[in-house]
Amino acid sequence: MLYGGIEAGGTKFVCAVGNENGQIFERVTFPTTTPEETMGKVIEFFNQFNLMAIGVGSFGPCDVNIESVSYGRITSTPKLSWKGYPILKKLEESFNIPIGFSTDVNAAALGEVTFGAAKGLNSCLYITVGTGIGAGAVLEGKLLQGLSHPEMGHVTVRRHLNDTYPGKCPYHNDCLEGLAAGPAIEERWGKPGVELVNNSEVWEMEAYYLAQALVHYILILSPKKIILGGGVMKQKQLFPLIYRNVKKMLNKYIELPELSNEIEKYIVSPGLGELAGITGALILGKEAYETQPEKQK
Amino acid sequence: MLYGGIEAGGTKFVCAVGNENGQIFERVTFPTTTPEETMGKVIEFFNQFNLMAIGVGSFGPCDVNIESVSYGRITSTPKLSWKGYPILKKLEESFNIPIGFSTDVNAAALGEVTFGAAKGLNSCLYITVGTGIGAGAVLEGKLLQGLSHPEMGHVTVRRHLNDTYPGKCPYHNDCLEGLAAGPAIEERWGKPGVELVNNSEVWEMEAYYLAQALVHYILILSPKKIILGGGVMKQKQLFPLIYRNVKKMLNKYIELPELSNEIEKYIVSPGLGELAGITGALILGKEAYETQPEKQK
Repeated sequence: MLYGGIEAGGTKFVCAVGNENGQIFERVTFPTTTPEETMGKVIEFFNQFNLMAIGVGSFGPCDVNIESVSYGRITSTPKLSWKGYPILKKLEESFNIPIGFSTDVNAAALGEVTFGAAKGLNSCLYITVGTGIGAGAVLEGKLLQGLSHPEMGHVTVRRHLNDTYPGKCPYHNDCLEGLAAGPAIEERWGKPGVELVNNSEVWEMEAYYLAQALVHYILILSPKKIILGGGVMKQKQLFPLIYRNVKKMLNKYIELPELSNEIEKYIVSPGLGELAGITGALILGKEAYETQPEKQK
Repeated sequence: MLYGGIEAGGTKFVCAVGNENGQIFERVTFPTTTPEETMGKVIEFFNQFNLMAIGVGSFGPCDVNIESVSYGRITSTPKLSWKGYPILKKLEESFNIPIGFSTDVNAAALGEVTFGAAKGLNSCLYITVGTGIGAGAVLEGKLLQGLSHPEMGHVTVRRHLNDTYPGKCPYHNDCLEGLAAGPAIEERWGKPGVELVNNSEVWEMEAYYLAQALVHYILILSPKKIILGGGVMKQKQLFPLIYRNVKKMLNKYIELPELSNEIEKYIVSPGLGELAGITGALILGKEAYETQPEKQK
């Protein structure tokens, strides 16, 4: 069976065609311009294939509440031409097959729990640290979606004593994303992270913030695996610093090997690498096929 | 069908017999002394009835991982005689019927989502603010349990600028529980909360801390309803202060009526009052009956 997947990002749309085993046969990328232009290319690409269903992992904020009238739309976004755009509806009108819809990070979590670093578990948290910070989760085998989708990147953290940078979040100033996403690193230190590799102060501070957020997520969600992706996490020197900070902050309150001597197996890089999100989108397509029999062709 | 429920607390054990509609026919309370004495009374009480199954909502930390060898045991606790005690096993040996097991706050969340303030939803968060601070959640219709059960009371919050109290948590000093649970209020202000009703500074500070934690929970879990129970939350003047702080902290980042003009319907008191936990324990019993057919009599 052939499924389509869309990883709809603010910079680019990745489209893939693959099967239920996560095998990808074709993959293309389109820049995110206007909805008409970008979605036109997406539809043209998928029209070449006889797909059973399509799954979308979308940038946000977007409406993931299936009972809502705006389900499947981008909601508020600084990319004005996309504000309120009904991605799901556009695809349903074009293809008349089951379409699944969730956030990009939820899709990545689904990809990782099915075929990646959390394979065999029914629970994982996927966090991306890049231009922004976002996270998605699978818990008890289900995507975490409630009143809305999570917005974990905007949690509050205590400020590092040496940090005088005011923060970059237009809503909360110095929330996690405002202090620790890529643009904050660049603005605080005067150059991008990739040019700061040997400045240990940068990564000590970054790990201090990320570890605080991970501790929030551990105490609140208790995921069975934590996966850290995104551009900033290519700085592999962050991992041991994060391990040390998480252990120190939890202070042995939860007595589990995952949070002490086996922490490097608990907090890991994506098993699917760059393909976590698009693989998850294919799985969203497969799930849509199984749960929407009335739309099967 | 008759089910048994146990709300196993550090101070007292509440036992009830009821049906699948949450109706309670008999309810008794035993003080928590030694496991032998307390569990002896529990078993004697339930022996009077022809029960189909029993559900336990237990104080913790306890092991809720069904795949673990210590599933159904109290793990670390300052109540030394209960440390490692296998509540679940003791009940299974005594009754030979299906037994369900989770945390006390998970049981309360289950009670509220089934028959209480979150009835009709598939998602809610139940927080108790009393001697300690704990929370349980139902998400997409399932209890939130992962690597372990959540320990949401121990999240970090930013300190109030006027607060010089060092905090009371033996593990984290000034985590939420260390700053905002009943004993912290009493130690900081020199008398218990019930004698501080008219001191607005007390409740402004308390609301500041609780609101920060609620914002963490909203951003990370996105529950469809938040229910605040426990002794401290009997101070009803806290609710409007919490509403104001949550709205201010989120700063309209998530544009939903539940987080703006309808917040007083989103963050509420328990619909079942003091019976949330024991009602949830009965439901845990019913669920155990349905999922353990091999143990049905």
